Amino acid sequence: MSLAQFNLEITKIRDDRRHGASELARRCLAILAEAARTVPAQDAVVLREQLKTLAWELAKTRPSMAPLKNLLHRWREELALDVTLDVATARVSAAQQAEALIAAPRQAVAGCAAHAAQFLGPGRTIMTHSLSSTVLQVCRLLRDQGLHVIATESRPLAEGRLLAEKLSNWGIPVVYITDAQMGLFAADADAVLVGADSVRADGAVVNKVGTYPLALAAHDQGIPFYVCCESFKWRQTGEPLPELEEMAADEIGAPERPGMTVRNVYFDITPARLISAWISELGVRR
Amino acid sequence: MSLAQFNLEITKIRDDRRHGASELARRCLAILAEAARTVPAQDAVVLREQLKTLAWELAKTRPSMAPLKNLLHRWREELALDVTLDVATARVSAAQQAEALIAAPRQAVAGCAAHAAQFLGPGRTIMTHSLSSTVLQVCRLLRDQGLHVIATESRPLAEGRLLAEKLSNWGIPVVYITDAQMGLFAADADAVLVGADSVRADGAVVNKVGTYPLALAAHDQGIPFYVCCESFKWRQTGEPLPELEEMAADEIGAPERPGMTVRNVYFDITPARLISAWISELGVRR
Repeated sequence: MSLAQFNLEITKIRDDRRHGASELARRCLAILAEAARTVPAQDAVVLREQLKTLAWELAKTRPSMAPLKNLLHRWREELALDVTLDVATARVSAAQQAEALIAAPRQAVAGCAAHAAQFLGPGRTIMTHSLSSTVLQVCRLLRDQGLHVIATESRPLAEGRLLAEKLSNWGIPVVYITDAQMGLFAADADAVLVGADSVRADGAVVNKVGTYPLALAAHDQGIPFYVCCESFKWRQTGEPLPELEEMAADEIGAPERPGMTVRNVYFDITPARLISAWISELGVRR
Repeated sequence: MSLAQFNLEITKIRDDRRHGASELARRCLAILAEAARTVPAQDAVVLREQLKTLAWELAKTRPSMAPLKNLLHRWREELALDVTLDVATARVSAAQQAEALIAAPRQAVAGCAAHAAQFLGPGRTIMTHSLSSTVLQVCRLLRDQGLHVIATESRPLAEGRLLAEKLSNWGIPVVYITDAQMGLFAADADAVLVGADSVRADGAVVNKVGTYPLALAAHDQGIPFYVCCESFKWRQTGEPLPELEEMAADEIGAPERPGMTVRNVYFDITPARLISAWISELGVRR
């Protein structure tokens, strides 16, 4: 893998609007496994420094996404052990470590979904926002148990539509609404279930923008609000939340006008006091 | 005006998504003034019955909009006085009454805007949702007083974009956001100011869908939330709020899928406990 190829991959990760934090973390690790096998380096020390730099560059692409940072940080830590190896063995070792970390989140997502499905139980109407691969797995587990879903559009790119189409393919009845209708339709749900991009140590959740007003509406109407994500999305105590990522204004599709500033922040923060329970592969925490 | 022409006008009012309740009430009265002058009728009694029926049909077109009902009701009441007149005089009288009622709301809107502008004062950042002609007038009054506006898109038809373009033309700086970002940007506002389609006697407000989650976000962050509308939008004590109007699902632009129901409700209800003050042409009520 040349530096030019790597930079192309970086750009793809940075511009990706279709995949969640877990999926992108897996892609980053796959890129690093490929880089471990092919990046030019004469010895293990140079290889290690090269790979650590690449991992650092990848981690910086999506600052709102804790899994990228956490998983790439873990991989960088493990790389520190490899300096005494010959370069060929070091390459294999680094690539295998990356591949092991790819498998871990998949298992964690499956574990989250299993806990959430059991916790929610049969015959429920669940409201969600945006597209979370974890929430999608929960829906698949509950598809034969009378699940109904209320899905928000999730502007600007309408990831909610992808979710609704997937649910339709699985035969799960879904009500699809604009984001502005979230307050009105929360009343029809037994519970709200969303994924997360990061969770602060105090339980505050960074997720797709619109999650916070949905949590307010659920709270105001006595509807439980659950967050379902892998444990490695939790930040350490004292570790600040990242700056909330903002994407290109032209995604909104508004005309350019003098004095008019179009904003396109992708995430908001839902405080812990609005969250009824956090569900991870480790279980349910209230 | 033939019955066919009248039915065409009814359809236009029913399908209008660009104008607020006050503007549409004025259009209804203009249609009735025209009908008073031209609808076939041999005597004043027949004319009165014809016009009352037409007013009733118009009032039914937009059940969420209190001004239509209130103004058309007032006009029907006044028509009851005209039975002893000859038909030509009755026509002129009915048309003039309609025209007088057209002028009244315009003055009321101007009165609301003047009170609101004085109440808000100079140098403010005001957040609003959708497009209210009253809020627009407030902005015009404050345009030389350092006003900044945060405007939501207001899906499905993005009336917020019309507002933002108007403000841009007037040289008022405006931040334009998707509805999903309302929770995030409420923190940047000194106050939220919205119009209303109807106000219940207890102060609960029917307005464009998304107003309720915006009020929740403002309340959660200690930002005052003001409703500015003419006094005739208030319903009587005990008078129930209308069913919330739902428009065609294809406005949302989602594909049709088996098991997927697209909903497009245009209004939601903001409870009085989330509202800091109601501003009308009569003054400010907290």
